[in-house]
Amino acid sequence: MSRHVLSIRHVWLALCLLVLAAAPAAASDSAAPDPITSFTLENGMQVVVIPDHRAPIVTHMVWYRIGSADEPPGKSGIAHFFEHLMFKGTTNHKAGEFGAKIAEIGGSENAFTTDDYTAYYQTVPPEALGTMMEFEADRMRNLILTDAVIGPERDVILEERRSRIENSPQSLLGEEVDATLYQNHPYRIPVIGWMHEIEKLNRVDAVAFYDRYYAPNNAILVVAGDVQADEVRKLAEATYGKVARGPELPPRVRPDEPEQNTSRTVTLSDPRVSVPSFSRSWLVPSYHTAEPGEAEALDLLSEVLGGGTRSRIYQALVVKTGVASSAGAYYAGSKLDMSNFTVYGAPRGTSKLDAVEKEVDAEIDSIVRNGISDKELESAKNRFIRSMIFARDDQDSMANIYGSTLATGGTVEDVEKWPERIRAVTADQVQRVAAKYLRTNHSVTGYLLPSEPVQN
Amino acid sequence: MSRHVLSIRHVWLALCLLVLAAAPAAASDSAAPDPITSFTLENGMQVVVIPDHRAPIVTHMVWYRIGSADEPPGKSGIAHFFEHLMFKGTTNHKAGEFGAKIAEIGGSENAFTTDDYTAYYQTVPPEALGTMMEFEADRMRNLILTDAVIGPERDVILEERRSRIENSPQSLLGEEVDATLYQNHPYRIPVIGWMHEIEKLNRVDAVAFYDRYYAPNNAILVVAGDVQADEVRKLAEATYGKVARGPELPPRVRPDEPEQNTSRTVTLSDPRVSVPSFSRSWLVPSYHTAEPGEAEALDLLSEVLGGGTRSRIYQALVVKTGVASSAGAYYAGSKLDMSNFTVYGAPRGTSKLDAVEKEVDAEIDSIVRNGISDKELESAKNRFIRSMIFARDDQDSMANIYGSTLATGGTVEDVEKWPERIRAVTADQVQRVAAKYLRTNHSVTGYLLPSEPVQN
Repeated sequence: MSRHVLSIRHVWLALCLLVLAAAPAAASDSAAPDPITSFTLENGMQVVVIPDHRAPIVTHMVWYRIGSADEPPGKSGIAHFFEHLMFKGTTNHKAGEFGAKIAEIGGSENAFTTDDYTAYYQTVPPEALGTMMEFEADRMRNLILTDAVIGPERDVILEERRSRIENSPQSLLGEEVDATLYQNHPYRIPVIGWMHEIEKLNRVDAVAFYDRYYAPNNAILVVAGDVQADEVRKLAEATYGKVARGPELPPRVRPDEPEQNTSRTVTLSDPRVSVPSFSRSWLVPSYHTAEPGEAEALDLLSEVLGGGTRSRIYQALVVKTGVASSAGAYYAGSKLDMSNFTVYGAPRGTSKLDAVEKEVDAEIDSIVRNGISDKELESAKNRFIRSMIFARDDQDSMANIYGSTLATGGTVEDVEKWPERIRAVTADQVQRVAAKYLRTNHSVTGYLLPSEPVQN
Repeated sequence: MSRHVLSIRHVWLALCLLVLAAAPAAASDSAAPDPITSFTLENGMQVVVIPDHRAPIVTHMVWYRIGSADEPPGKSGIAHFFEHLMFKGTTNHKAGEFGAKIAEIGGSENAFTTDDYTAYYQTVPPEALGTMMEFEADRMRNLILTDAVIGPERDVILEERRSRIENSPQSLLGEEVDATLYQNHPYRIPVIGWMHEIEKLNRVDAVAFYDRYYAPNNAILVVAGDVQADEVRKLAEATYGKVARGPELPPRVRPDEPEQNTSRTVTLSDPRVSVPSFSRSWLVPSYHTAEPGEAEALDLLSEVLGGGTRSRIYQALVVKTGVASSAGAYYAGSKLDMSNFTVYGAPRGTSKLDAVEKEVDAEIDSIVRNGISDKELESAKNRFIRSMIFARDDQDSMANIYGSTLATGGTVEDVEKWPERIRAVTADQVQRVAAKYLRTNHSVTGYLLPSEPVQN
């Protein structure tokens, strides 16, 4: 059985970290990869080809412009539920046949759902690409959706929710922080769905969802690896090209946030928690919604403030005062609508959570008041741009970056010009986004506490 | 021009307080009013007649089973916007003609919108009832909804929001407390709508809303006053009876709340605030969703805990320690879906908000641990039941109680049996609902603070 990954909201960041963790020796600034090609099939399916001839491997991904934030009210979890159903039988192939084929040729596969998109991928030898496309094009429209299929899979998802969320105080808190941070936008609803709503998802919901969203004109094909663009085009036309265009979908306009004027806290006390921790989040624009340069500045702010061991928060709290065992910041810029900027920390040993929180606030305050140095900015830019170069070295990562960008309103050019736009950010711009967005009276702070009251 | 009232969420409570404040000398337990009649017109319009022959006055109300919680996502404020539009011209009457007629005969009129319903009423001499019905039946279907009508009225509503909400820190806080308390249910959305969504409401939204919800089969006619049921039936058949049945509407099932596991705070600091205050709210069932007896027990709990000057909170905080200038509790049981139970308080003089909060918590804790005395319960029951008797003495109040009950899933019998059900509540039941629902780790606390930090 394939693993179903319910990805976190911070795909881009996760990718960067993942890639940073990979062998940096393989990276080289002088690598000049083949040009990336993109085109659209007659039925509206967008195609991106990322040639990479270093190894006889190809990554084949299909991205649907449908995520949990597009679900009808009261139907939370249907996008992720559908990701599971895509592994069931079609009118042409029994359940499991696709996966068995992949295993047989030594490939791997996976799928994931976020607020904004759902993606399916396989990594296989190039000669199997056509077969992958056949299977993937088949399940785009030919799934058999009966109660006998749906009932048991709903139980699987309920169990997935129990083990991933209900058993994890941190996940439960995360859900309520999101529900508090977003007062109107569906990003407040968990991707996996709420228990009481998953329980009610049924065949009618599944069929309506499938017929509306699973169609070539709502999909993006990303192929990365040891292939040529014209060869991919030929295969895509012979497979996906045969699938009829689906309904024309209206623009993906979700309810927007009202002006927020409060600071909020969300506290979960649980006997399973041993070390207290906090996170503080602010609503900020994403790459898709930001004024020019602001998303890039937020990315660099997150890097300078708390992006790794070189960051201000890490150096101050973990290295210098040692008050924290972990602390940092992140920004999830790759969203269709607004996003959030988050700082977090947990005390070390007998330190108090309150002290960690105060020191993190002091680091933010220092940037808001005094800005950052050009040297810090340069260093952060280099780390960011290097991460992109590392990503180029990783087929999956590149496919992910293009897929997630295209599925959240960006273009191929946006990905290609990203390093250039990062380079253009000034220290002043970083200070300005910090001052503009990281205001305490517009934040949501989550506290995860042991059940026994801790002395803060 | 008629006043448009955007009513608070606590209609029932407001009525009780209003009525309690009215001259109690007029009340009498021995009053045996004429029986209340209810029937349904052929087109599905429900009718309730409440005879009251003490004065030559009649209250004519039409209640639509449509409130802000039924609005499509992203269209907040359309229900209330529509309430305004109902005062515009129809194909038969110019804008203002209805109001002028009412003024001419010395009557009064009003309208209000809540989460669950929208109501229109006039108080006039009985001989004008037929005319009122003609006008009201006319605007149920014959409104002229052009851009020329809608644009200027949208500006009126935006101004109403600015003056009622944006200019009131307490209202702004209230909105964010609701948005935090309700994580999924549309009760989290303000009845008046969010500014950015009101701005976008247009003719297409208004026409769709009107055609869907303004129809006799989605309306309840309540006539209270110096009339006979058969006379009302005749008039109703001749006016409302001529209006065609509208679309069959699905059951009013709104997205339900997930299980909540956190305590939350929402803090608004504003220079316009001089005295700090707090409120703490819990999700609780309404009369419509509660297990038998629980809503009645919650009503009595609110009365004993903080329902007036005789309550525990008032006696302890305002009278005895004097730490608070105001403090109390309320429960808004008259909702279609779940509701909330709230305690609140503000310090007197140099007292600290923190001290007020602690004393309120102590009063709750005392009931959770030790329950209430039979004497307290009896006294609370008597006050509640007397309020119903007072309400009988007030035409508007009775019409309101029947209308709001019927519009939130209740029946005429529910209203009639309410005093009996209140009488049946035991002290043990009151303690049980306190213990079951008023748990700190499931609450949302709002803090309204002066901008200068106060010492709590």
